[in-house]
Amino acid sequence: MAGSVAATTAMRDEVGLYPQGAAFIDGACVPIEEARIPILDWGFVRSDCTYDVVHVWHGRFFRLDHHLDRFEQSVAAMYLKNPYTRAQVVDILMRLVRLTGLREAYVEVLVTRGMPKQATRDPRLCENRFYAFVVPFIWIATDEMRARGIHLHVSDVVRIPPQSLNPAIKNFHWADMTKGLMQAYERGCDMPVLLDLAGGIAEGPGFNVFAVKDGTVTTPAGTCLLGISRQTALDLLQEQNVKTVIGPISPAELRAADEVFITSTAGGILPVTRIDHQPVGDGEFGPVSTRLKTVYWQRHDQGWDCTPIDYD
Amino acid sequence: MAGSVAATTAMRDEVGLYPQGAAFIDGACVPIEEARIPILDWGFVRSDCTYDVVHVWHGRFFRLDHHLDRFEQSVAAMYLKNPYTRAQVVDILMRLVRLTGLREAYVEVLVTRGMPKQATRDPRLCENRFYAFVVPFIWIATDEMRARGIHLHVSDVVRIPPQSLNPAIKNFHWADMTKGLMQAYERGCDMPVLLDLAGGIAEGPGFNVFAVKDGTVTTPAGTCLLGISRQTALDLLQEQNVKTVIGPISPAELRAADEVFITSTAGGILPVTRIDHQPVGDGEFGPVSTRLKTVYWQRHDQGWDCTPIDYD
Repeated sequence: MAGSVAATTAMRDEVGLYPQGAAFIDGACVPIEEARIPILDWGFVRSDCTYDVVHVWHGRFFRLDHHLDRFEQSVAAMYLKNPYTRAQVVDILMRLVRLTGLREAYVEVLVTRGMPKQATRDPRLCENRFYAFVVPFIWIATDEMRARGIHLHVSDVVRIPPQSLNPAIKNFHWADMTKGLMQAYERGCDMPVLLDLAGGIAEGPGFNVFAVKDGTVTTPAGTCLLGISRQTALDLLQEQNVKTVIGPISPAELRAADEVFITSTAGGILPVTRIDHQPVGDGEFGPVSTRLKTVYWQRHDQGWDCTPIDYD
Repeated sequence: MAGSVAATTAMRDEVGLYPQGAAFIDGACVPIEEARIPILDWGFVRSDCTYDVVHVWHGRFFRLDHHLDRFEQSVAAMYLKNPYTRAQVVDILMRLVRLTGLREAYVEVLVTRGMPKQATRDPRLCENRFYAFVVPFIWIATDEMRARGIHLHVSDVVRIPPQSLNPAIKNFHWADMTKGLMQAYERGCDMPVLLDLAGGIAEGPGFNVFAVKDGTVTTPAGTCLLGISRQTALDLLQEQNVKTVIGPISPAELRAADEVFITSTAGGILPVTRIDHQPVGDGEFGPVSTRLKTVYWQRHDQGWDCTPIDYD
């Protein structure tokens, strides 16, 4: 399989051939509508896989190496092996983005357990598989939510704890997230934030949470993904000499914060203006969130930590 | 989609056309080798799905209605909707088994969230999908393990707790199981049993656990699937006037039991003869496990709670 990639990259793909999206399946690039995986892949029937998401903005990957570093750590931690090298993965992603022609894109890489050649329950006997796909950029929040600020619901659902699954491994174990999302909708909120076993704020579906109080910005650890956008927020805040703390946030502290924002590859820095229908602070975007969000997108425009894509 | 099934069932499929297995995908029956699901199905990328497994033995489904009852409860609890009625599901399964010609088979039904028609993160906007597949009967344990008894490892991995995911909903959230399995292999054992948050015995990958002490049989609740085979074991033990208790088992109690056995649709009643390399009781199959196992397979031979398949 690995050899076929090297062989085919000599050919130039037609840029923009698959504007709806493109995927890399079983060594070939296909339009997203045709991208399918075997129903027996344990990546599906045991959710035995890991993934990462990087975004393309203005025709450039943003912090690609950070995402691929984490991806490789997740793959190893899951006892998986990517049949492709990092250089091959980058090459595949470049091809896929070119095939879509997209300047703003959501790019996902996955390694699944695959399937064993004969009947067994032993994951070690499976041939691991690498998949990837590129689709138009996905916003975690609608235009309206981004304009007025996110309305969060503090869920009573507990995020799958580290005793069961290391949250630093990016995973598809989302039944808790989906339940929280359904409950948030039932309550007229946009999205939920789940708790950890100690009752503290953990994370929400696809995002990390930050609280600003008296100029100090706190974000939890322990029961959340170590998001790349979370790290970008921390990096940029430290550049601005804002005090940051990695530590617990109780639901009461979240509700009493001056500002709250969430971070996600699928949207960057997103201010939260209501929690369970009550305003956060004065209910408007606060100065720390606003400045951080501005700088976050300025960095994209400046090409900071970006990897350009050759579309020609 | 639902209509197409009714239309095609008038035709008789060729019995044994797909001896390796058959699947029902997007309204059509296909050989298992060709059975694929969209990579974007949230059943995969959010593990947002539920399933059930029923087995066919001597050409008959065993306790089919129990499995379909639980499946329907799981589907509802996951805020999913099966596009097919129960009668249609049974009809599809009958067709699939006939297509394989298999007399002993592993039959899986699934409902996944599917995909939304346009970009959204709202599960309510997805079109749910029903899939099914039939493959040759899968044993949870090899011939050797069944002959000598299972060698269990008591893992320190905690099964995903009810605070995160209702364990009565059959689900693919198995990263904890996979980690436990890897650790069991590293220690030279056959399979792990995971713990609950209180440190008690929860369940293992695909099975429930029972301990026999002084003639009383105990199996835990709370952090385990309410297995149909677990219930069958309880039903048969009660018929035999054996005292059964639903309650916690500590690792120490498991190690000190007179007999230990596990139950699974993929193997029925399976005695455990070692735990972390130490013998259970005298290290041989005990009388309660042996009798239960015998009766379990007698019931299959007698057609008890069985649904015959018309292969002609």
